[in-house]
Amino acid sequence: MANSPSGDSMLDRLVRILDAFDAQNTSLSVQSLARRADVPRATAYRLLDELVSHGLLARDPDGQVRLGLRLWELANRSASTLDLRHAALPFMEDINQLLGQNTQLAVLHEDDVLVIERLSRPGSVINQANVAGRMPVHLTSMGMALLAYSRPDVLEGYLERHSETMFAQHPKLHHELAEIRRNGYATFDGFIDPESTGAAAPILDSTGYALAVVAVVVPRASELLPAAVVALQTAARAISRTLAA
Amino acid sequence: MANSPSGDSMLDRLVRILDAFDAQNTSLSVQSLARRADVPRATAYRLLDELVSHGLLARDPDGQVRLGLRLWELANRSASTLDLRHAALPFMEDINQLLGQNTQLAVLHEDDVLVIERLSRPGSVINQANVAGRMPVHLTSMGMALLAYSRPDVLEGYLERHSETMFAQHPKLHHELAEIRRNGYATFDGFIDPESTGAAAPILDSTGYALAVVAVVVPRASELLPAAVVALQTAARAISRTLAA
Repeated sequence: MANSPSGDSMLDRLVRILDAFDAQNTSLSVQSLARRADVPRATAYRLLDELVSHGLLARDPDGQVRLGLRLWELANRSASTLDLRHAALPFMEDINQLLGQNTQLAVLHEDDVLVIERLSRPGSVINQANVAGRMPVHLTSMGMALLAYSRPDVLEGYLERHSETMFAQHPKLHHELAEIRRNGYATFDGFIDPESTGAAAPILDSTGYALAVVAVVVPRASELLPAAVVALQTAARAISRTLAA
Repeated sequence: MANSPSGDSMLDRLVRILDAFDAQNTSLSVQSLARRADVPRATAYRLLDELVSHGLLARDPDGQVRLGLRLWELANRSASTLDLRHAALPFMEDINQLLGQNTQLAVLHEDDVLVIERLSRPGSVINQANVAGRMPVHLTSMGMALLAYSRPDVLEGYLERHSETMFAQHPKLHHELAEIRRNGYATFDGFIDPESTGAAAPILDSTGYALAVVAVVVPRASELLPAAVVALQTAARAISRTLAA
């Protein structure tokens, strides 16, 4: 593949361009896009024309650029997340309606928690999770539940790369993970937002490792928590069974 | 951008590769991927290595290739469909639970109906809509409702490109569209599947044109239909209000 004078390929630049957009930056000017993607402005203009002509990006009437619906279509119609989402959605809606709080579905991806789905309601406590957004493993109940139910090699690999931040936050990590496995769920108070508590239960595959987690965020010290934990564990088992069927 | 001897660019080939996957082909061998994407096999191997290293594609243990979670992440975290989905999901769940039938959300995209979300339940009638899948405008209640509530220039453009197939199916098209607008919804019997009937109501923007449609598929001649139509129209109005807020 043709490389630019700086040595990065067309695909490197394309990924950096797509990566420049996120939930806080759904549309960008060509200038700020070029800057965020670290692509020379002249290259950006040329590349954007081609990306717009393929529908991967779209241009707003005011000249701002955003992701194109064609990109969404290509990325979603055979997505590996679809089966998981479809199995989980009805149970997530039940939890969301019963508890009236944000309900999330997430997987472990590249050492982060990747949020696959989030259902929220007016009046839910603040929380930081966005669909397709990432959250830190060591600061979320979702991450800790995923880690506790990871295959040993996945856990080991994660700890090789992140032992410092992890053990700084969780000095008794192995004890904590064992407790999560004994309880069947993880809860954590306000690591990210001081006014909220997260709870997460693993969705297990047939070998007993986590495919994903289902989680809620409730107000800190809420009397909802014990009920939320039972609801999550019930939902997680039902989702596992639906996926196995 | 560097062009191959055949004159197509790297981006042309990338889009054809992503386009080779769909709901029926979520994983492909390199050979069948090269054939479906019309890319020389040697080029495909080289390109796949680079796409896998960026996480846009992923390789299964058996060597089959599928879309990578990183592509899903990039395409979804600032997707223009997110607000629409989030506004629509609670109302779609209500309809899905009350009627027990497939409930869909779709937009008009490149002269097709593009399905943004679909909720289904065990026991729902067969239907062909998949998330991020396309359906023909002239054979679906979703397409006809979208067309009836399109801006005049969009309708005109569509008819310039598709008058033959459209008028073959709908000889009294303008009469039909006027009736859909008068009723506030579209229903059609079994164009795609003879045993089902679709019903769709437009989600309008502040200027009275359709942003999207919400739809259900019920068994043909079902006594559910009148209730379904009222539920859809109620939901569509609630979704419009939620989006405007």
